[in-house]
Amino acid sequence: MKTTTRKSGFFLTLEGIEGAGKSSALPVLAELCHQQGYAVEVTREPGGGALGEALRTIFLDDSLHLDADEELLLLYAGRRDHWRTRIAPALAAGKVVISDRYEDSTYAYQSGGRGVPPAHIAALARWAGITRRPDLTFWFDIAPELGAARIRGRRPDRLEQEDQAFFSRARAVFAERCAAEPQRIWRVDASQPLPMVHDAVRARLAARLAAFYS
Amino acid sequence: MKTTTRKSGFFLTLEGIEGAGKSSALPVLAELCHQQGYAVEVTREPGGGALGEALRTIFLDDSLHLDADEELLLLYAGRRDHWRTRIAPALAAGKVVISDRYEDSTYAYQSGGRGVPPAHIAALARWAGITRRPDLTFWFDIAPELGAARIRGRRPDRLEQEDQAFFSRARAVFAERCAAEPQRIWRVDASQPLPMVHDAVRARLAARLAAFYS
Repeated sequence: MKTTTRKSGFFLTLEGIEGAGKSSALPVLAELCHQQGYAVEVTREPGGGALGEALRTIFLDDSLHLDADEELLLLYAGRRDHWRTRIAPALAAGKVVISDRYEDSTYAYQSGGRGVPPAHIAALARWAGITRRPDLTFWFDIAPELGAARIRGRRPDRLEQEDQAFFSRARAVFAERCAAEPQRIWRVDASQPLPMVHDAVRARLAARLAAFYS
Repeated sequence: MKTTTRKSGFFLTLEGIEGAGKSSALPVLAELCHQQGYAVEVTREPGGGALGEALRTIFLDDSLHLDADEELLLLYAGRRDHWRTRIAPALAAGKVVISDRYEDSTYAYQSGGRGVPPAHIAALARWAGITRRPDLTFWFDIAPELGAARIRGRRPDRLEQEDQAFFSRARAVFAERCAAEPQRIWRVDASQPLPMVHDAVRARLAARLAAFYS
């Protein structure tokens, strides 16, 4: 395993609106890591840690009528637990950690989607000790109507039922963050056929891992 | 009902360590309100709102190994929901709201008990919009060993299993807060026989309500 020469592992996150293809890319990227001899830890949000998993049902229960700040408090409780019990230990062991959604989704959905000021989110993130940025983020960018068409036939959860204007605002936030952090966030044209999307992210990840662990 | 002449109702909280007698006093105080013609809303923490109730199981599940900040994030998610959906509407309707535990317990247990700096708690409270102080707080003060003797025979939950040093530190925080806010927090000697404790809080509440709603 190529994990012994560095103090910290490599933290990759997959981001994008519903139907962009994150979840289908995740096993492809994990398989690439295995093939190349990297120890890999695959996780997701919401969920991930035991607390986040326990909170996931609550978070998706629309009968609770959570307001935006309550959603954020639950998200950051889960994220702190996820970070503390899963991600940080795996990085400390030198592994590649791949998370299906992480911090950028919170800005896209809660700020872009629901209108919470980004500084209000950032204040809570600092309070909760969420300060480590991913080393690389793949933003699976797709037009909301195309994403919606892809997930048609799947039963949508509460977030997926949001209207297209909501997803357009979320997409705009991903675009802003990508422009602000071009070294970290890499945009993938997710409207391409899946094999092309997968080839693109595999190639980019392989190059970044080779540089990172060299 | 004596609720029409004021814009806001009266917010009473009951505080103290385990075994101090808060829960047995609560129906006595609610009954006093009914007798005197006040509309009353009885609630508790953790729990209270629908979110807090859903979180209560998680909060008390020691297999999750929550850290102190995760506990606080859950507590304030539940408290915000409790405030927003139960307490604030009842106060807006002019009712007397009686909550078995509220904000002071967080300082007693998380700061006194677990050593979280009080300013760290206060920062989260402000973030979550928890700024309205109770109009009156009864602090049921009892020595931890006496409180423990009272609850013996009941199956203790996770918090009640904490050691006596923990409850001594919690008690010290209640004492500090009582000294800092003597107009709001009224100490009850909860080591007295229950009928005496109940007479004392009934008399104090009756006097305060008469003044408040006059």
